Amino acid sequence: MSYKFAIVGGDLRNVKLAGLLKSSGHQVFSYGMANGLINSGVASTEVIEKCNDLAEACGKGEIIISSIPFTSDGKTVNAPFHNSTIDIYDFLNTIPEGRLLIAGKIPLEIKNYAELKGIKVFDILEREDMSILNAIPTAEGALQIAMEELPITIHSCNALVLGYGRIGKMLIGLLKNMGAKTAVAVRKSKDFAWAEYENIESMDFAHLSDKIGKFDLIINTVPALILEKHSLEYVKHGALIIDLASKPGGVDFQYANKLSIKTIHALSLPGKVAPTTSAISMGKVIFNIIEEAGYNV
Amino acid sequence: MSYKFAIVGGDLRNVKLAGLLKSSGHQVFSYGMANGLINSGVASTEVIEKCNDLAEACGKGEIIISSIPFTSDGKTVNAPFHNSTIDIYDFLNTIPEGRLLIAGKIPLEIKNYAELKGIKVFDILEREDMSILNAIPTAEGALQIAMEELPITIHSCNALVLGYGRIGKMLIGLLKNMGAKTAVAVRKSKDFAWAEYENIESMDFAHLSDKIGKFDLIINTVPALILEKHSLEYVKHGALIIDLASKPGGVDFQYANKLSIKTIHALSLPGKVAPTTSAISMGKVIFNIIEEAGYNV
Amino acid sequence: MSYKFAIVGGDLRNVKLAGLLKSSGHQVFSYGMANGLINSGVASTEVIEKCNDLAEACGKGEIIISSIPFTSDGKTVNAPFHNSTIDIYDFLNTIPEGRLLIAGKIPLEIKNYAELKGIKVFDILEREDMSILNAIPTAEGALQIAMEELPITIHSCNALVLGYGRIGKMLIGLLKNMGAKTAVAVRKSKDFAWAEYENIESMDFAHLSDKIGKFDLIINTVPALILEKHSLEYVKHGALIIDLASKPGGVDFQYANKLSIKTIHALSLPGKVAPTTSAISMGKVIFNIIEEAGYNV
Amino acid sequence: MSYKFAIVGGDLRNVKLAGLLKSSGHQVFSYGMANGLINSGVASTEVIEKCNDLAEACGKGEIIISSIPFTSDGKTVNAPFHNSTIDIYDFLNTIPEGRLLIAGKIPLEIKNYAELKGIKVFDILEREDMSILNAIPTAEGALQIAMEELPITIHSCNALVLGYGRIGKMLIGLLKNMGAKTAVAVRKSKDFAWAEYENIESMDFAHLSDKIGKFDLIINTVPALILEKHSLEYVKHGALIIDLASKPGGVDFQYANKLSIKTIHALSLPGKVAPTTSAISMGKVIFNIIEEAGYNV
Repeated sequence: MSYKFAIVGGDLRNVKLAGLLKSSGHQVFSYGMANGLINSGVASTEVIEKCNDLAEACGKGEIIISSIPFTSDGKTVNAPFHNSTIDIYDFLNTIPEGRLLIAGKIPLEIKNYAELKGIKVFDILEREDMSILNAIPTAEGALQIAMEELPITIHSCNALVLGYGRIGKMLIGLLKNMGAKTAVAVRKSKDFAWAEYENIESMDFAHLSDKIGKFDLIINTVPALILEKHSLEYVKHGALIIDLASKPGGVDFQYANKLSIKTIHALSLPGKVAPTTSAISMGKVIFNIIEEAGYNV
Repeated sequence: MSYKFAIVGGDLRNVKLAGLLKSSGHQVFSYGMANGLINSGVASTEVIEKCNDLAEACGKGEIIISSIPFTSDGKTVNAPFHNSTIDIYDFLNTIPEGRLLIAGKIPLEIKNYAELKGIKVFDILEREDMSILNAIPTAEGALQIAMEELPITIHSCNALVLGYGRIGKMLIGLLKNMGAKTAVAVRKSKDFAWAEYENIESMDFAHLSDKIGKFDLIINTVPALILEKHSLEYVKHGALIIDLASKPGGVDFQYANKLSIKTIHALSLPGKVAPTTSAISMGKVIFNIIEEAGYNV
Repeated sequence: MSYKFAIVGGDLRNVKLAGLLKSSGHQVFSYGMANGLINSGVASTEVIEKCNDLAEACGKGEIIISSIPFTSDGKTVNAPFHNSTIDIYDFLNTIPEGRLLIAGKIPLEIKNYAELKGIKVFDILEREDMSILNAIPTAEGALQIAMEELPITIHSCNALVLGYGRIGKMLIGLLKNMGAKTAVAVRKSKDFAWAEYENIESMDFAHLSDKIGKFDLIINTVPALILEKHSLEYVKHGALIIDLASKPGGVDFQYANKLSIKTIHALSLPGKVAPTTSAISMGKVIFNIIEEAGYNV
Repeated sequence: MSYKFAIVGGDLRNVKLAGLLKSSGHQVFSYGMANGLINSGVASTEVIEKCNDLAEACGKGEIIISSIPFTSDGKTVNAPFHNSTIDIYDFLNTIPEGRLLIAGKIPLEIKNYAELKGIKVFDILEREDMSILNAIPTAEGALQIAMEELPITIHSCNALVLGYGRIGKMLIGLLKNMGAKTAVAVRKSKDFAWAEYENIESMDFAHLSDKIGKFDLIINTVPALILEKHSLEYVKHGALIIDLASKPGGVDFQYANKLSIKTIHALSLPGKVAPTTSAISMGKVIFNIIEEAGYNV
């Protein structure tokens, strides 16, 4: 089945997504990403139809894809490859009733406004399939940072993962498979059981300071202040802390800095370390959304 | 910390558990498992104190462990190593108020009755940590059956797992790691994403019949009729179906039989293939229960 | 390319191989395996042309496949599915000059005799590709035995592999991946380095007795008396020893028996646990032989 | 046992090695690496005894460790942290008879000269244990480069490894475990069998051009011109080639450049990506050498 997509704003991932959709046989109309298309090197972008204004894009596209995150300032759509700005409400007012709008991290009042206008709004970052697929480049990105920063191999290093969610699980898999002596800090009895299944050392967050001293690499995935002053004091000289939790993160960075512990707050890794893979994953999830929405043009 | 355990009834796992608890320095009182203790070969069982009656066991034991499942007939405690029967209500009426009672698959009315009497009842089979630890021998047991029955190696065989829960995940891990060409049938978009992470083929239950024909080994973990007539008709000659779902299982066994497809409904594998490991896991979960209950003697 | 194969004698693997070759489009002539063909259930065997005598088989077949091992008594070809016996020299004298003869464990004087007659003789068991492919079912077979015999899961068990050759490597892979605490006993510094790469405990054969006491499962792959009296005395109660080394094996079985240590001397596992896979592997290696021999009919 | 080591020349690995040996309780005398010791941050280097000249170092050290590689110009010892030069023959003439000299890639005539003088010379790079341990950071280093350069994840990417030696094996392990669709190019039938065991695609070097077109990542480990003009022409746009073979490497770099294929000739990765791990590994091998030499001071 061939769809008509409008892509409005967004970063390199949207540019690559435009190319992927086009080369899969769909029609792709774009607005607000012209500079990206020019420089992207995406093979088929020259045949993507650039629209002159929002009205053209929203009129031609049946499924409208916008940026991830949707907005940074609550007023304009994120559109780094656009020469001007796109007002969110101008945009929403231009979308015909019944259309699908897919973007990421859409503020609630904006979502409500759009739905009142009869637009079917989907926040791609709230979907579990997207979270799983995004966890893959996130875990790889953390691994890459660790490889770049440490003077030792991942093999044989003492690595501690804080948290056992999607990203934690993937990190544990990567580290174990590469031969790191891997441990995990958790809280729930079920997570201790999973750690036992994985044959890795586990510890309670409450006892972190007792055991943290032996680790060369510590990766946090929990969005809460896990590595506070007390635990940081036991971190060994030369160890690296990577924090993957969204701002403000799970590390007392100031205190770590005072103790000369190297910390890296690594955010938005998928788009940075693997923009092409991210675009491919977005494409998959968008088709899941379309299918689940029972959308048939 | 040393506890006083009473073990009342139960199968070989309870016998081995008694030995484990004893050799870890706890006091162990037993009732209703004498024949098991005699023949078990559990090293330290000779020092387990056998009680003369329920009153002695329930009086001396602070934490009372009974059988898994608790009862088969709703009237008596499962006690295959006992010369007589243990009436459930006699048993419950003998337990002093405030004691912990730990058993498996306790019928609701029995649980309610005990709690009204002030007994703290814990169903070990309703805990996620127990389910995870039990999934390990279940998955290994299924693998063992497959190895015994098939004239081919697991390596290179085409294997299909139905369902992506705890057991499904572990089976996929085992099969992949052994070199099977592994696939999974699922329904939810998040499970398709996990299958992609695992780099295995995935298919929707709805399209099972289209793809089932190539598999040498099919293992069901879903407690619903998944392998019905239509799908069975496409199963290839010589394939093996193992059903791990509790009765009535997920296979139309009669129809499979008519088609001369080999099926094995493999139930209660942990106690069968690895009773010692099961007892060890039960022990771990029992201590989790004690800790979470804040029980301090 | 389609070849004319004659299969003379051999066990279930040759029967299955006949079926595989036939169904891949080759011509297959058989002699000395009629009873196997009747009962094998190999789908296409009914179309395999049974020859009346050696002369017919050796005349029609360009590539002659015989049994593995070729002979047990030095006089007759192994042919368990034959109603009579096949004299080796009668057989060889019937093969026309220039033909390929492929069998296993061919005694040197027999090989020399055949080559003097202008037959191109290939011992399939002397090839490394065959050894690698045979190691797969051997390692799986050992695992299956361990699963059947031990009351614990492979997961979490303490497992020791003696030797780090092909089978040792595969066993270590299987055991590690299943979550066993895996160790290896070796002698050479390079094997210690490989064990370090694999992140498993390693020990010198010379210090076996110091460390053997903790293992639940011990698998020997070395064709030399490794587990002699002194080491056996330290093996723990309830441990299982599986010996994969060809006769006389690497264990002092009598002494182990005296100490009530359970030992299993598991030989010829590929044909036993996975005859179909073995036949498939033989087929692959036979085509490697044909290609390397530059044989073009 | 405590030894007296003299370390003469060498790069960061020798500096770190000095620290490791010192902190393990050995005596360490150094010459020709003073600048490295000052800036290394190796904790215990301040207690390493710096010698004033070769005579002092060679006199005090029983085991003399020099650089890897020993020399670049055939005349002087590699000593990047030395303010002056160390003449090879001055050095060798200063070493007392019977001492061990351990270095890497020692030219034959130099080795012969030293042995004639009664020095026991060991080339650490000719040992298989060293090669195995060095292959670990080499494979990780190649992976790191791939992660840095590619806009896709290793997960799901199409990766081809040329050669199936130590580094090839480790790369295949890393890539497979990370979820890459991994293939290997080999020549020998035994390597095809190993690839089958690993469940990865394999191809003959002779047919590289037929299949190379689908790969995103191509890593060469073979010290021969494998990727010549003809094959390069089929490499897909955007693919990355990493060559790990020592100079001149296995790629026609000029032609690749002409075709705008990104190539990276990555040499000496262990010292670059993981100097500390390299030093630890050198230490292990040095003790293997000492033990095998039966050296007892």
